Amino acid sequence: MKVAITKRVHFCAGHRLYNPKLSDEKNFELYGPCSNPNGHGHNFVLEVTVSGEPDPGSGMIINLRDLKQIINSSVIDKIDHKNLNLDVDFMKGAIPTTEILVSRIFEILDREIGNGLLDRVTLWESENNRFEISRD
Amino acid sequence: MKVAITKRVHFCAGHRLYNPKLSDEKNFELYGPCSNPNGHGHNFVLEVTVSGEPDPGSGMIINLRDLKQIINSSVIDKIDHKNLNLDVDFMKGAIPTTEILVSRIFEILDREIGNGLLDRVTLWESENNRFEISRD
Amino acid sequence: MKVAITKRVHFCAGHRLYNPKLSDEKNFELYGPCSNPNGHGHNFVLEVTVSGEPDPGSGMIINLRDLKQIINSSVIDKIDHKNLNLDVDFMKGAIPTTEILVSRIFEILDREIGNGLLDRVTLWESENNRFEISRD
Amino acid sequence: MKVAITKRVHFCAGHRLYNPKLSDEKNFELYGPCSNPNGHGHNFVLEVTVSGEPDPGSGMIINLRDLKQIINSSVIDKIDHKNLNLDVDFMKGAIPTTEILVSRIFEILDREIGNGLLDRVTLWESENNRFEISRD
Amino acid sequence: MKVAITKRVHFCAGHRLYNPKLSDEKNFELYGPCSNPNGHGHNFVLEVTVSGEPDPGSGMIINLRDLKQIINSSVIDKIDHKNLNLDVDFMKGAIPTTEILVSRIFEILDREIGNGLLDRVTLWESENNRFEISRD
Amino acid sequence: MKVAITKRVHFCAGHRLYNPKLSDEKNFELYGPCSNPNGHGHNFVLEVTVSGEPDPGSGMIINLRDLKQIINSSVIDKIDHKNLNLDVDFMKGAIPTTEILVSRIFEILDREIGNGLLDRVTLWESENNRFEISRD
Repeated sequence: MKVAITKRVHFCAGHRLYNPKLSDEKNFELYGPCSNPNGHGHNFVLEVTVSGEPDPGSGMIINLRDLKQIINSSVIDKIDHKNLNLDVDFMKGAIPTTEILVSRIFEILDREIGNGLLDRVTLWESENNRFEISRD
Repeated sequence: MKVAITKRVHFCAGHRLYNPKLSDEKNFELYGPCSNPNGHGHNFVLEVTVSGEPDPGSGMIINLRDLKQIINSSVIDKIDHKNLNLDVDFMKGAIPTTEILVSRIFEILDREIGNGLLDRVTLWESENNRFEISRD
Repeated sequence: MKVAITKRVHFCAGHRLYNPKLSDEKNFELYGPCSNPNGHGHNFVLEVTVSGEPDPGSGMIINLRDLKQIINSSVIDKIDHKNLNLDVDFMKGAIPTTEILVSRIFEILDREIGNGLLDRVTLWESENNRFEISRD
Repeated sequence: MKVAITKRVHFCAGHRLYNPKLSDEKNFELYGPCSNPNGHGHNFVLEVTVSGEPDPGSGMIINLRDLKQIINSSVIDKIDHKNLNLDVDFMKGAIPTTEILVSRIFEILDREIGNGLLDRVTLWESENNRFEISRD
Repeated sequence: MKVAITKRVHFCAGHRLYNPKLSDEKNFELYGPCSNPNGHGHNFVLEVTVSGEPDPGSGMIINLRDLKQIINSSVIDKIDHKNLNLDVDFMKGAIPTTEILVSRIFEILDREIGNGLLDRVTLWESENNRFEISRD
Repeated sequence: MKVAITKRVHFCAGHRLYNPKLSDEKNFELYGPCSNPNGHGHNFVLEVTVSGEPDPGSGMIINLRDLKQIINSSVIDKIDHKNLNLDVDFMKGAIPTTEILVSRIFEILDREIGNGLLDRVTLWESENNRFEISRD
């Protein structure tokens, strides 16, 4: 019987929604106050879901300590208390919308966890806005 | 890569669970204290999920301000601080269970958002009871 | 050493903010959409705080089961799934604002719990609005 | 139109992650502090999702009171305020990981609710760790 | 009987903890990752508590719409989606710790609400860190 | 201006409410299912509040990293994933009610933080039951 495990972690970061190919006016029209030149920020919540059959010997699919360590070293350590436009290698050249951020995090975690175990990544930008990618 | 965006909004409303074809006793048997003749009410939480591929120019699937405006004008403005049995045009003649309410909201939002973008509507009647419709 | 214990309970109810001495227009001016003639409602959260020194024999100030039983029989059973304007004896003749409701609940619980143990009553009308009374 | 209803309930329980075929050292290596010989515990949150088409006569898929009664009598009454290693018949001989616990709860509820109505069972061990089983 | 009313509002902002009189190394020693040169940010929650006796005519202490309007125009409009180091007039020259931010907000709201009604301001920087000022 | 800072931390633990001077029957009468012989457990939330005037040089009252380190080393490391009846030195010989536990934690933290900075300790046993000690 397949079980899906979800680990929630938290980080905070700053960003400015901004497309450098557009004028400041066009950026404001598109992103509103999210394009404020000096940026703003959020407490993000990241949920990572892996799924599989529990191993009969351990009763577990993946050790949650290992999963947490992978999430921290490959994602959280690179974005927590950082500016998403300026400080994060895997966001270089990208518009730092949460849609793009969650896509990049899915790609990284899928590679790092391996074995097709990753099922879903959900990223909450605030209590009222969340973004999700599932392996279809 | 397909991303699903979920917007949460809040409203409060009153209702009485009541089928006019049945006696008050039958209604009480069926709905318990929810059939109290003078009604009761809830703080509802509505989650609306749309999905698609982020536009390369904006990094967004749909502008969350536009989504919020559609949800407010086509749904929230008609039900917030209202009585679901008496004040809401799209609930006329329906038993105002949350099952029926979430179905009507899905139909309205699917038409208003258009392009088959709407993926899922979830309606929380309380912290412990929620109702959800997904496209197939 | 004095310890304060807080018990949280939930109920839902309908109400209409309305002063019968005023016209409908004046009521709308004062209470806005909360004066909708057919009412609306909320999921309320009630927090009841009592304080005292733990009894050396039991390690408790008051048995939480007893406290919960008092809260239920003297308050919750009378307001849960009810209309605060029409169904609740201890709100008869009062404007059913949450300010007045929390005051009446404090008076009832103070009498029922006795011994000056009641310290504070807090009533959440929604996640963003709460009302509190403390003993001086 | 198919609607999914989710009921949340709470329970608390103690457990020790421990495979009796392994030494204490191996258990500690595998489960870390969760293998503490005298056990520890959690406040669990259980979400049970059933789905179907609302009945035209009642506007409901299943009466939530009935669903709650089934969940309580077949699951909660057997695990609430219990030790999962020692007190729970349906966990006898199993390693009491939350992965295994949620699997057993799914099997029980699927049988008790019947008619293939059960869609999904989710079990939160803490705010940051949850486990879920969906019907295929 | 005195009732305290609390209104919760949300905003997001960016900041860098930084004392310009100190070197970058000293700032890092003092503030850790919060001194990241390109900043980071948070979803803040602001709770404003006023207290008084309900007016017999309205059953209210202060109209919550008026209170919300004061909070928005004097505080939220100036800090939401802003950089606290660079964009906020009332934080000019101050180290933008949440301790200092909550102090300035208390002073502003006390003046704007008037009549000594303001009782307490609480500012949550994250789910796990909050800062509070009470009138003596 | 005095600011109060609150740090929230989480731990989980098992316990059995049990007074060894009483029979099992008397214990069950007093504590109900909480006296289950094999114990049960909770996810606890601990809130520690210190207060003082922000230092002009740092804009802080106490460095939250230092506060967290004190809480972890003097309290959390001793109770997380432990059995409160059997594994915790500072609870030896005490009835492990949450009333007693929060009292002991206040005494320890008051000594470890020093300078009379500690203001309040709040311990949540569940979402609906919390226990609090304030300095006078």
